[in-house]
Amino acid sequence: MMGNDFLFQTLSSWSTSSIEEVASTGPGIRFFQLSVYKDRHVVERLVRRVEWAGFKAITLTVDAQRLGRRENDIKNRFTLPPNLTLKNFEGLDLGKMDKVESSGLASYFAGQIDRTLSLKDMKWLQSITSLPILVKGVLTVEDTRIAIQNGAAGIIVSNHGARQLDFVPATIMVLEEVVKAAQGRVPVFLDGGVRRGTDVFKALALGASGVFIGRPVVFSLAAEGEAGVRKVLQMLREEFELTMALSGCRSLSEITRDHIIARWDAPRL
Amino acid sequence: MMGNDFLFQTLSSWSTSSIEEVASTGPGIRFFQLSVYKDRHVVERLVRRVEWAGFKAITLTVDAQRLGRRENDIKNRFTLPPNLTLKNFEGLDLGKMDKVESSGLASYFAGQIDRTLSLKDMKWLQSITSLPILVKGVLTVEDTRIAIQNGAAGIIVSNHGARQLDFVPATIMVLEEVVKAAQGRVPVFLDGGVRRGTDVFKALALGASGVFIGRPVVFSLAAEGEAGVRKVLQMLREEFELTMALSGCRSLSEITRDHIIARWDAPRL
Amino acid sequence: MMGNDFLFQTLSSWSTSSIEEVASTGPGIRFFQLSVYKDRHVVERLVRRVEWAGFKAITLTVDAQRLGRRENDIKNRFTLPPNLTLKNFEGLDLGKMDKVESSGLASYFAGQIDRTLSLKDMKWLQSITSLPILVKGVLTVEDTRIAIQNGAAGIIVSNHGARQLDFVPATIMVLEEVVKAAQGRVPVFLDGGVRRGTDVFKALALGASGVFIGRPVVFSLAAEGEAGVRKVLQMLREEFELTMALSGCRSLSEITRDHIIARWDAPRL
Amino acid sequence: MMGNDFLFQTLSSWSTSSIEEVASTGPGIRFFQLSVYKDRHVVERLVRRVEWAGFKAITLTVDAQRLGRRENDIKNRFTLPPNLTLKNFEGLDLGKMDKVESSGLASYFAGQIDRTLSLKDMKWLQSITSLPILVKGVLTVEDTRIAIQNGAAGIIVSNHGARQLDFVPATIMVLEEVVKAAQGRVPVFLDGGVRRGTDVFKALALGASGVFIGRPVVFSLAAEGEAGVRKVLQMLREEFELTMALSGCRSLSEITRDHIIARWDAPRL
Repeated sequence: MMGNDFLFQTLSSWSTSSIEEVASTGPGIRFFQLSVYKDRHVVERLVRRVEWAGFKAITLTVDAQRLGRRENDIKNRFTLPPNLTLKNFEGLDLGKMDKVESSGLASYFAGQIDRTLSLKDMKWLQSITSLPILVKGVLTVEDTRIAIQNGAAGIIVSNHGARQLDFVPATIMVLEEVVKAAQGRVPVFLDGGVRRGTDVFKALALGASGVFIGRPVVFSLAAEGEAGVRKVLQMLREEFELTMALSGCRSLSEITRDHIIARWDAPRL
Repeated sequence: MMGNDFLFQTLSSWSTSSIEEVASTGPGIRFFQLSVYKDRHVVERLVRRVEWAGFKAITLTVDAQRLGRRENDIKNRFTLPPNLTLKNFEGLDLGKMDKVESSGLASYFAGQIDRTLSLKDMKWLQSITSLPILVKGVLTVEDTRIAIQNGAAGIIVSNHGARQLDFVPATIMVLEEVVKAAQGRVPVFLDGGVRRGTDVFKALALGASGVFIGRPVVFSLAAEGEAGVRKVLQMLREEFELTMALSGCRSLSEITRDHIIARWDAPRL
Repeated sequence: MMGNDFLFQTLSSWSTSSIEEVASTGPGIRFFQLSVYKDRHVVERLVRRVEWAGFKAITLTVDAQRLGRRENDIKNRFTLPPNLTLKNFEGLDLGKMDKVESSGLASYFAGQIDRTLSLKDMKWLQSITSLPILVKGVLTVEDTRIAIQNGAAGIIVSNHGARQLDFVPATIMVLEEVVKAAQGRVPVFLDGGVRRGTDVFKALALGASGVFIGRPVVFSLAAEGEAGVRKVLQMLREEFELTMALSGCRSLSEITRDHIIARWDAPRL
Repeated sequence: MMGNDFLFQTLSSWSTSSIEEVASTGPGIRFFQLSVYKDRHVVERLVRRVEWAGFKAITLTVDAQRLGRRENDIKNRFTLPPNLTLKNFEGLDLGKMDKVESSGLASYFAGQIDRTLSLKDMKWLQSITSLPILVKGVLTVEDTRIAIQNGAAGIIVSNHGARQLDFVPATIMVLEEVVKAAQGRVPVFLDGGVRRGTDVFKALALGASGVFIGRPVVFSLAAEGEAGVRKVLQMLREEFELTMALSGCRSLSEITRDHIIARWDAPRL
């Protein structure tokens, strides 16, 4: 994510704008983050729409076959406000979250999402689409190997914003082990905790091919709308470019592991 | 401790309900946590009652032959409130704690408990009962080996809620060394600090066969009575099961050491 | 920096007193900290004035070819107060910083300083002066080697007061690696974080030939003028000498690596 | 320091009761902590009085040939209150500290104490007395070896209450390295930071032959006089004995290195 040429988007299955609405906003590289519904017809229909809309890849979420226990959502009885719906599911009558005693999201999730998700679903997905499939939610060597052996086109190191399981490691702490396990066979991306250009630099130095950001976009959108998002992207771009310059890197390929010090590095003596 | 099938109780010698009252509440697997009184007739009588009441094992407390210096108890002049007695000792006129200038518990303890407790008492205990005897209060390789060599049917890694000796390690920090020392010959349990399902998962990943909880039960009992205890057990069960699911474990046997990262683990690079 | 004989000064290009004014205050060893302007005539003229004024060395700043993102300066719209100018550039009409919407320093910097600074500029500098050139802003083995191979007369381990790039290491943490890389071929100095005589001692024990201080001088100047600066220098001198005495060092050469313990040292067992 | 049989005292040269007054209070094992005055006649006279008063050893302070920069003393213009004098020096007209602009102690120290203290003074001291001489203020392997090679009868690991030099290690952190360097040739003691019986246990487990305490005695004396000191000694004795019992140690010789875990210990796996 540097110039606009380097910018791409991954759209949630549960976006409140539809696949087609997003695609209609103009050119751009888009991935679709697929949630696997119990009803595979729902999934297949999503995949078709994504293909027709020109998305470039599917990111298959493998760390949310069950929803984490999000105690704030339970306490606040979180649900979508009335004016918002899950637009991609409106025609299927799956677009609304009920208001329930605990978390409306948890309730919707338990009702619709397939908790038996496994490698056979990845095989099935590969059988119904030729789009590249990235595996999102990998934190270990083992899962990296399994994903690649089963045809993953890329790995996204993610802990789902640390909302799924308490005590998961920070993604930046396990990125390097995943990169090593991938052995350069597929690109490895990272999300989680990217707030500054220095974070982007660290991820790239540890071997990431790119990073995804969530909250900086959402918060700036809430604060200042489109202008806010432009501002946050501009800030990240400038900070990253400045970090490169001050680290003596003239191009992305000059960013190496030696440009950073990780907690687990031996002293250089 | 998962489903109710996996739930068992260990009852303190100093419970304010008697062995027989507890047994009469219905079926269940019960252990008895034995305090060794100076008067061995008292101990033998306890053991007989435990056997008759259908308890499945004795846990012999080996970290409290002396009571730790509990400064809050001293400052607060802790003693049992008048409406409570040590029910198991009522007939022996040992059921009450006096109100003294310092800790009533410390005073009672110094008067009744045998501070010379040693391996010969374990031998004696084995000679008077055929119940399996677990050793509770182990924190080291050395004590694990001694306990097993002397016939322990199991090990409970415990620091007595950290109330006995300042600076003892947290049980989760020494669990792995005890498990390795046990070499699979007897089960190793853990108590101390278990508050969430993730804690249960960590203990099992480090090799524990199960965990004991104290304060969550006591606090929920105080707050909401039986319903509170049910709630806390339910919470632990659900969180543990969710942790398994999100860690990709379909059964207890699939929980391995590689599912967690301990502070002392080398970087996986 | 011990007795006055050991005291020397490095003057910023952007001082608010001119090279000549500083030189006229009396004898003393002075270095000049050179900022490389886009217009090399400006640079060459500075170098000539520095030579004529009897300065002993040039320190070439290599960590500020771009100005760090100093958010306080941006927020406060930092610029020089009207009564101060960059005296060395008055005749060149480059002495003033404009008042702008963000940081006046950043604006001036972006306009005047050459962001393409590289080794060829060091070569050029060597071609126009015979003054020794120290390289300031080194934090790694790699840059140390490059600097020495290209004729640096000394190394200054500096992170520019940590104002250039977030997450740079503290200079004291990398000093030893730089000293080892220098292999005794040129002296290594340190700046950053020196506040007490114990800090000077630590730097020397890690192999520094000397240290530079900035804020202690500036703060004491602001608080008590010349007397304040004398006081802070006296304090550092006395504390350093006392540290030597209490560490059993009778001369600078008796200060060794064994007189300190660094975080990365193995236990001495 | 366990029962009274294990209790001994070390008296400061600058005590406000004289050597003879202290000796007259009854039997007891006493050491004398010797400060080396510029005037060696003063020192020799102290040594003679100590011998005559039946003291058992001299502890030679080697970390205070210069007084540390004690900023609180400077700020508070510390001096002895008028009703107190350095009783051991009354006849020599050296018993009073002047009230000065900064620290009265620092002023007295600078005037009287020999900052050139070195091994030749230890040799001289050995030549004038047959009392065993312990070296107090050792923190390293190197100084341990030098002290023993030069006839020290014992080592006291001390950082002078951390009042001499900022950043000295805590004594408990270096005790083990000193004990190993001493190779059992002389006893090693520790002072600094001993506040609880657990601290005594840790020091002994790391190889100390005993510990010295200062502030607990001084504070309890200020709070409750003789009864306070008795109380604090009783507390330490009871806590230490309880720590032994709960660690399974029936005698001092059963306290081993394996009874504690130090920060630098490898995991026991």
